[in-house]
Amino acid sequence: MFELDQLEDLSVKNLSKIILLVIDGLGGLPKGNGVGTELEISRTPHLDQLAMMGNCGLTEPVGIGITPGSAPAHLALFGYDPRKYIIGRGVLEAIGINFELKGGDVAVRGNFCTVDDYGMITDRRAGRISTEKCVELCKKLQDVMIPGVEIFILPVKEHRFALVFRGLSLEADLSDTDPQREQLAPLPVTPLRKKAQTTADMVNEFINDARRALNGQTPANMILLRGFSKKPSLPSFEIVFKLKAAAIANYPMYKGLAKLVGMQVIPSGSTIEDEIATLEANYEEFTFFYMHIKGADSAGEDGDFARKVKIIEQVDNILPDVQRLSPDVLIVTGDHSTPAVMKSHSWHPVPFVLHSKLCRPDGVLKFSERDCLRGSLGTFPALGVMPLAMAHALKLSKYGA
Amino acid sequence: MFELDQLEDLSVKNLSKIILLVIDGLGGLPKGNGVGTELEISRTPHLDQLAMMGNCGLTEPVGIGITPGSAPAHLALFGYDPRKYIIGRGVLEAIGINFELKGGDVAVRGNFCTVDDYGMITDRRAGRISTEKCVELCKKLQDVMIPGVEIFILPVKEHRFALVFRGLSLEADLSDTDPQREQLAPLPVTPLRKKAQTTADMVNEFINDARRALNGQTPANMILLRGFSKKPSLPSFEIVFKLKAAAIANYPMYKGLAKLVGMQVIPSGSTIEDEIATLEANYEEFTFFYMHIKGADSAGEDGDFARKVKIIEQVDNILPDVQRLSPDVLIVTGDHSTPAVMKSHSWHPVPFVLHSKLCRPDGVLKFSERDCLRGSLGTFPALGVMPLAMAHALKLSKYGA
Repeated sequence: MFELDQLEDLSVKNLSKIILLVIDGLGGLPKGNGVGTELEISRTPHLDQLAMMGNCGLTEPVGIGITPGSAPAHLALFGYDPRKYIIGRGVLEAIGINFELKGGDVAVRGNFCTVDDYGMITDRRAGRISTEKCVELCKKLQDVMIPGVEIFILPVKEHRFALVFRGLSLEADLSDTDPQREQLAPLPVTPLRKKAQTTADMVNEFINDARRALNGQTPANMILLRGFSKKPSLPSFEIVFKLKAAAIANYPMYKGLAKLVGMQVIPSGSTIEDEIATLEANYEEFTFFYMHIKGADSAGEDGDFARKVKIIEQVDNILPDVQRLSPDVLIVTGDHSTPAVMKSHSWHPVPFVLHSKLCRPDGVLKFSERDCLRGSLGTFPALGVMPLAMAHALKLSKYGA
Repeated sequence: MFELDQLEDLSVKNLSKIILLVIDGLGGLPKGNGVGTELEISRTPHLDQLAMMGNCGLTEPVGIGITPGSAPAHLALFGYDPRKYIIGRGVLEAIGINFELKGGDVAVRGNFCTVDDYGMITDRRAGRISTEKCVELCKKLQDVMIPGVEIFILPVKEHRFALVFRGLSLEADLSDTDPQREQLAPLPVTPLRKKAQTTADMVNEFINDARRALNGQTPANMILLRGFSKKPSLPSFEIVFKLKAAAIANYPMYKGLAKLVGMQVIPSGSTIEDEIATLEANYEEFTFFYMHIKGADSAGEDGDFARKVKIIEQVDNILPDVQRLSPDVLIVTGDHSTPAVMKSHSWHPVPFVLHSKLCRPDGVLKFSERDCLRGSLGTFPALGVMPLAMAHALKLSKYGA
């Protein structure tokens, strides 16, 4: 696979438009004695026609047998090797709530938890307190002050919050405090590199003060931290690929990720129809559109096979609206598989279809896992998606004379 | 993929013979509402039979979505990673006219161009002057002398020439003078590394003298230079693979490339029939034959679908003459795709068939893009062609005990 700097050397600017429609968690598995995956069971006449006219395959998000998180899976689709460009949990949590991280900030994911009188964790999630309660407790922690450091305590959802330290010479090479099991005490933060000692001391001081501030609260009387990280510096998507890139997504994490690679996030309503309307309204202004549809993944995570089918059919239903815009390259795929029977992300390759005027016919008649398997793209690394999209949009010049 | 030094460790010498028949630009796309590519439309009974008996697949010349130039595409077929072994434009141009480049020579591609009274380029190709005129102007430039440097000014075709500087401590890390657009002045040569300053000064002096020498000429009154480069040092094909290798090609570029990797270029007439006669006459003396057929690529570049079909059928027609020699391994493929509808090289994978007595049947009945897709080799990197050829010729020993 070509590196981003090599692709930057080859990429050229033109007016062709690329739409990358990502159905989160698209890939699936048959249920019980059923024979079809969620996608195979779905009635998808428009996607099938797209498959017939385009080129199909299955993407391998990060590697054979590897189940990706949403961030690495998306990075690969955007052309960034997820094994080279690592985004920490803390950073993901912070950008996921639209917090504007600065270069030297150290971000970490926080949980409110319950500890007993001996300091042992009895519930790592404090009974999943309400988001309102989370907001209230975060306000309380705001009183904790550490000299020379600005601290942001940002409620996320239920027991989850993001914590950002801003100051001079902070280091993120720190161990987690979450022991990942109950009946143990929270761990102290330890530096993973010598120069992180000062930051470790500061965070431990913060944790002690937080414990005092939460004393007497029930059930959330302590915090657990994991994934200390700094904002990575990623090559700009718009510079590498010479695209004007728009992201149409609803969940903060995906918006944050798109922003991190340098796409412009366009505000949009939350339904699929809203997202299409946003696409239509902004179509003239950009040459690349990343559209994210979350519902299929959520249904998969909930183990709701039927709901996932319904969401795929909904996407199929609005596909003609996308096609009416006549993009030069239209891609429909997922970031990873989320089989409802597994109630989780999985390592299974992900259905992929690309349509342009330069597709060599590959005889696929239907958009499904088993049909994509017979497509001309075979099973290929998701990192190949952007080079392929760029090629079909005639945005890559010849390599070598 | 194994590196060349690993392959060298495994390769063994035997009497088996390999023929690699390269139909330049073989891969294609359907035309208009047609359903078949150039190859699919062609009547190719002998190639189809070869596909039936052999193993088929599609090669990816340099990477997914990447359109290769002829040089990297050929290097890959010869087993040289085109991302590791880079051959500059200047070197290609010089070897393309059979110039014997020495190790320290700096070669560059030249264009005669037209500039106006203000020195602005009005035609980057000087109206594509005749080759005769080019020869005459190159003679005129031969008078330009730079102390301590030997200068070769070599006409190529129409407005194009190759320029070679020979002297002590010359460096090729120099910027192009061709601004790639008209209405701009030619750029001065700048050193890309500090130690190239002296060479940059020398080349700028040459350009100024050339401008004076061409003063008053119409339309070619100035030169543009791009692709300063030195002859790369490539591992020898004959040593790595322990083959006695012959190249039968007509276009200088391919002959030069074959020579560069260490093949012996055999003089041959220019028709396909001539090349076959050359193959037959030299068959006893070599164990590897690279045969290059240019016409299909030229037809593709010209957008001439029908002519490309005709050339493919011509190759099919002479295939029995090749088979009559009973090579142990016969490969027919292309270096890249040149779909007539695109009038250019493209990134689409390239049909490939290998026949030997050791092919596992793969059920392919026809030599075409979509049939090769179903072949046992699937879509695979062109870098795999030589290891595969060597294996089927029993010229690779076991890796590890």
